Amino acid sequence: MQFHHDGYVSGDPRVLPASGTGVDRPSELPDEVDVLIVGSGPAGMIAAAQLAQFPGITTRLVERRPGRLEIGQADGIQARSVETFDAFGFAERIIAEAYRITEMAFWKPDPADPTRIARAARTIDDPTGISEYPHLIVNQARVLDYFAEVMVNAPTRMTPDYGFEFRDLRIDDETGAGEHPVAVTLARTSGEDAGEERVVRAKYVIGADGARSGVRRAIGCTLAGDQANHAWGVMDVLVVTDFPDIRTKCAIQSHEGGSILLIPREGGYLFRMYVDLGEVPVGGEEALRATTITEIIAQANRIMHPYHLDVRDVAWHSVYEVGHRLADRFDDVPVDEIGIRLPRVFITGDACHTHSAKAGQGMNVSMQDGFNLGWKLGHVLDGRSPASLLSTYAAERRVVAKELIDFDRQWSALMAARPEDLQSPTELEEFYVRTAEFPAGFLTQYEPSMLIAEPRHQESATGFPIGKRFKSAPVVRVCDANPVHLGHHAKADGRWRIYVFADAARAGEASSVTEWAEWIAHSPESPVLAHTPEGGDIDAWFDVKVVYRQDHTGVDIGAVPDAFLPRVGRFGLVDYEKVYAADPLDDIFEARGIHHDGAVVVVRPDQYVADVLPLTATGELAAFFTAIMRP
Amino acid sequence: MQFHHDGYVSGDPRVLPASGTGVDRPSELPDEVDVLIVGSGPAGMIAAAQLAQFPGITTRLVERRPGRLEIGQADGIQARSVETFDAFGFAERIIAEAYRITEMAFWKPDPADPTRIARAARTIDDPTGISEYPHLIVNQARVLDYFAEVMVNAPTRMTPDYGFEFRDLRIDDETGAGEHPVAVTLARTSGEDAGEERVVRAKYVIGADGARSGVRRAIGCTLAGDQANHAWGVMDVLVVTDFPDIRTKCAIQSHEGGSILLIPREGGYLFRMYVDLGEVPVGGEEALRATTITEIIAQANRIMHPYHLDVRDVAWHSVYEVGHRLADRFDDVPVDEIGIRLPRVFITGDACHTHSAKAGQGMNVSMQDGFNLGWKLGHVLDGRSPASLLSTYAAERRVVAKELIDFDRQWSALMAARPEDLQSPTELEEFYVRTAEFPAGFLTQYEPSMLIAEPRHQESATGFPIGKRFKSAPVVRVCDANPVHLGHHAKADGRWRIYVFADAARAGEASSVTEWAEWIAHSPESPVLAHTPEGGDIDAWFDVKVVYRQDHTGVDIGAVPDAFLPRVGRFGLVDYEKVYAADPLDDIFEARGIHHDGAVVVVRPDQYVADVLPLTATGELAAFFTAIMRP
Ligand SMILES: Cc1cc2nc3c(=O)[nH]c(=O)nc-3n(C[C@H](O)[C@H](O)[C@H](O)COP(=O)(O)OP(=O)(O)OC[C@H]3O[C@@H](n4cnc5c(N)ncnc54)[C@H](O)[C@@H]3O)c2cc1C
Ligand SMILES: Cc1cc2nc3c(=O)[nH]c(=O)nc-3n(C[C@H](O)[C@H](O)[C@H](O)COP(=O)(O)OP(=O)(O)OC[C@H]3O[C@@H](n4cnc5c(N)ncnc54)[C@H](O)[C@@H]3O)c2cc1C
Repeated sequence: MQFHHDGYVSGDPRVLPASGTGVDRPSELPDEVDVLIVGSGPAGMIAAAQLAQFPGITTRLVERRPGRLEIGQADGIQARSVETFDAFGFAERIIAEAYRITEMAFWKPDPADPTRIARAARTIDDPTGISEYPHLIVNQARVLDYFAEVMVNAPTRMTPDYGFEFRDLRIDDETGAGEHPVAVTLARTSGEDAGEERVVRAKYVIGADGARSGVRRAIGCTLAGDQANHAWGVMDVLVVTDFPDIRTKCAIQSHEGGSILLIPREGGYLFRMYVDLGEVPVGGEEALRATTITEIIAQANRIMHPYHLDVRDVAWHSVYEVGHRLADRFDDVPVDEIGIRLPRVFITGDACHTHSAKAGQGMNVSMQDGFNLGWKLGHVLDGRSPASLLSTYAAERRVVAKELIDFDRQWSALMAARPEDLQSPTELEEFYVRTAEFPAGFLTQYEPSMLIAEPRHQESATGFPIGKRFKSAPVVRVCDANPVHLGHHAKADGRWRIYVFADAARAGEASSVTEWAEWIAHSPESPVLAHTPEGGDIDAWFDVKVVYRQDHTGVDIGAVPDAFLPRVGRFGLVDYEKVYAADPLDDIFEARGIHHDGAVVVVRPDQYVADVLPLTATGELAAFFTAIMRP
Repeated sequence: MQFHHDGYVSGDPRVLPASGTGVDRPSELPDEVDVLIVGSGPAGMIAAAQLAQFPGITTRLVERRPGRLEIGQADGIQARSVETFDAFGFAERIIAEAYRITEMAFWKPDPADPTRIARAARTIDDPTGISEYPHLIVNQARVLDYFAEVMVNAPTRMTPDYGFEFRDLRIDDETGAGEHPVAVTLARTSGEDAGEERVVRAKYVIGADGARSGVRRAIGCTLAGDQANHAWGVMDVLVVTDFPDIRTKCAIQSHEGGSILLIPREGGYLFRMYVDLGEVPVGGEEALRATTITEIIAQANRIMHPYHLDVRDVAWHSVYEVGHRLADRFDDVPVDEIGIRLPRVFITGDACHTHSAKAGQGMNVSMQDGFNLGWKLGHVLDGRSPASLLSTYAAERRVVAKELIDFDRQWSALMAARPEDLQSPTELEEFYVRTAEFPAGFLTQYEPSMLIAEPRHQESATGFPIGKRFKSAPVVRVCDANPVHLGHHAKADGRWRIYVFADAARAGEASSVTEWAEWIAHSPESPVLAHTPEGGDIDAWFDVKVVYRQDHTGVDIGAVPDAFLPRVGRFGLVDYEKVYAADPLDDIFEARGIHHDGAVVVVRPDQYVADVLPLTATGELAAFFTAIMRP
């Protein structure tokens, strides 16, 4: 964490000084905003938390509920989400309070007596070390709480506007509409003026309003997918039981009675069970939805035989019905107008894709939607980038949603299959282990676009695949000999990151790194010089870091080029935290396949690798940014 | 973190439900309190944070300042303090914002040109892996902020009473005084009624009012120690410099100009320098105290030659004068009345011991004073223990203070010595590495007393020395296969901990562990049965845990004795988080020298090992608690 560079400020460094729209932010929802977000679920809250970092942008988030979410909904937090929380500064706290999954157990009919279940297998949750972050379970409400804290501590001092319901929107013709072409009709849901409507005009609207999205309807998107919904009885309960794996994530298949997914929860006592209620029968929807908690418990006890659940308290329960559905588009631009018109309204999260709860994806993928869109809107509204950037949101995220739905279909089918229908008795466990990178959130790889370069130079750093998220590795910070994770310094501050991995030369010696540093600091071609706002710190929009091959005692900080020791803040102090050395015990150059001539790795504000280049390809680097940033 | 056992509560689990005196806690200082703490420094705040956990006790803390500390004072946080912060639940957050020391550099006159300084050595800060916790630097104000948060989140919802100055106190004769024998005169320091005096009566008073303690004076303690104070010019500054180690802790000795201790600070830019101003000359105190910041900076630049400090901003500066002084006693009982009369008034922290800032001890040792005293007062006032427990505070902590002062004298002398006066050129670095356990806070070993057993059975667990703090080691929690640190579950909740380390038998097999579990759960001799309050959970006052020798898959939780799976809360749920297994990669039985017949390790609420016993020595275990707990 870096702070105090503009002078000592006494207090929590997580509370950033208010600036821009955060100074005297009106508590009332204004008539005109830059971005209006509908819905305070994970997708809406992360987008808001990201946009809240841009002092010049007015973002408001409306939510139908009168206040924060208190209970229920999703709870699975994949490692990619924890990595994302770290970028927003609250990973360590949510880890401390969440349940951590390290193993999963598989229970099946006991071959000796199929009326009884027996433990068939135990698998390690992350057997290959996909991530240094854990796989967690914690109530969605807590995730939203942390994002709310990030928002209010941001320079814009943002808080959600509770008690407003989205009714409809109209996008005025670009030409006549002025700056705020989207007119959104809202209604108060509580308080004295409940029911009262008002119109708020926005430059952009994010529909993060869940599976029954009104924003989706308003822009005329349609959902495609399974006709039939699958239903689970879900319960968050406090129980006394003789089932030995009650604090372990379990997939439990009974011989005849169906299956259960058991998810231990935060705090050491609570757990969630998904009791499979099967496909929602046509005409039988009402009956299924009326399934009582007593029936869910009875069904669970049948499946668990010979073990018994003595339910002492029910914290929450629901019949959760969901189909595999995908919106035909993720913004207001119809397919035949792509390239002709730019989007003004976006849908994110459950509003554009739904899938089963079993793979624990809903909240996670929704957050990545919001993270993807948030910085792009920030850059366009901030004047950093052309509005064409916004088309990449739908292009990138729709592919991910499609892959997710396909994966989830397979996983759900396997979970629901009766043991005798499986190809092999261990098919379920094997699938789980084989596909682990997917549910952990790391398989996403964006296709080449204006934001993702063609992989022309991937060989410069084979371990940073272009289009995938930057996978961190340990390094040592030179100035203070601190062992750190290089990627963990990539905060959700909206900045592009350029990592320079050195060739064999030492800091300061004549080398490609020294030449590159000279170029980035002084060449008229330099993207940092070309695109950094006048009067701003040189690292305001670009975070340029270097990693040397020597250990930290072999790097003389006095010889490091100035490009990696920028002057910042009103005192022109030196930022020493951009210079790193390899950790001899765990060499990042080896671990990430860095070419012996070095490499430049360009990383987006949402942590995805946009390009990998040799140190000498300065022209290409400049061209990449020319296409996506305003001069 | 364990929660939700009395039902789901939506919100931050760190905010405990209000209870006892925390329900409708009066904002005004009442006329009668159980404990009155004077001073909101580290000693007072930790004692308050500890006492705040006891719902039945009314603790108030008065502080002369109108509000929180904002800047200045100490900043060195030894690993033992971070371990303590973990017990109070905020280690991960303060680690994230603090500067972390991993190395220290030693600069000396360059042998080739002694007018210039040159780097002579670099040493690893914790070369032997004394602790899994880091050595940090962060402003004292932040430490106090975190304790304030712990207090207000505790069941008693405690907050400091700012703007009250201690004037005097009188201890009434025990016989006639009733329940609140200490009459304390306070005066308001701010607001409309500034200067107004009032009397608050207390059962006990903690003087945590710093080096010029009024409480100390009021109970007639005297300070012994050096006549002369040593003085440093201290400055917290933002600087541009060419000194390469500016973000590394450095001891810098110049040939003639004196020495500097450089301490990088939180946030990446700020640092502190202690510029040695030498002994305070008799008669010259005023002149020395008048040393300006300009003079301190000039002196620093002379010492740093040929490097230069261009100071851009001064956050704080002071002439910090301190002597090596120790109070003759730490409570109101004169030496000749020890054993006859029990203490009512205690002094802690700087009020009873002062020493140089160089070893970075002031805040740390003061916190251990407060931690030591806090739970003892809690236990006595809560009716758990006899008042005789309170005599152990002075007995234990005065020895520690004495050792600290001796250590600090050596360290200060070495730091101040001119290079040519040292026995060897590397004497300073060697002393630093050799004595590392001391400044890290782990050398404290309490002598046998009612709270520390005679080491009759130390061979049962040689790695848990009786009288030293319980040194954690990795284990695996059986119920959820989570790798955890056994000691990190020891929260500052005022409970005694009994760790059972198993013999070779498996859970449930006939073995000493099974017999011990039977005994603790059912024997009339069992301390847990004898001393747990009626109607309370069985783990209310004692936290009994077991560690098996098998790996976690070798422990069948269904076979573990009930003593290690207690029923808690209003639903009688099973607490599964007391059963552990060895981590085969880092075996606690090996690491801590556990005897093959197993061991019982008794740990105090402040994390010190009180006793180590064989599993069969149940009588001795019972006797230990009989002496210190009420039936
Ligand atoms: C009742 C319920 C139970 C669920 N149970 C599970 C589960 O058991 N397991 C699981 O994995 N996932 C579950 N989910 C799904 C999971 O919560 C979602 O995948 C995830 O929250 C998606 O995030 P989101 O931000 O897209 O939408 P949501 O979290 O659904 O957030 C949408 C928000 O928009 C608000 N909103 C909706 N319409 C309007 C409007 N017109 N105006 C203003 N605000 C509006 C809603 O109140 C809500 O706060 C459940 C969802 C719901 C709603
Ligand atoms: C100005 C100053 C500068 C320091 N600089 C350094 C340094 O550079 N390096 C270092 O290692 N240590 C320094 N210290 C010492 C370090 O802060 C202490 O060792 C540490 O704080 C001890 O904690 P404590 O709780 O015992 O006392 P303190 O932190 O001193 O707290 C005592 C508290 O009691 C309050 N108080 C005092 N008298 C009364 C009264 N009559 N009524 C009510 N309240 C009262 C004070 O306002 C204060 O908040 C400094 C201390 C001070 C006061």
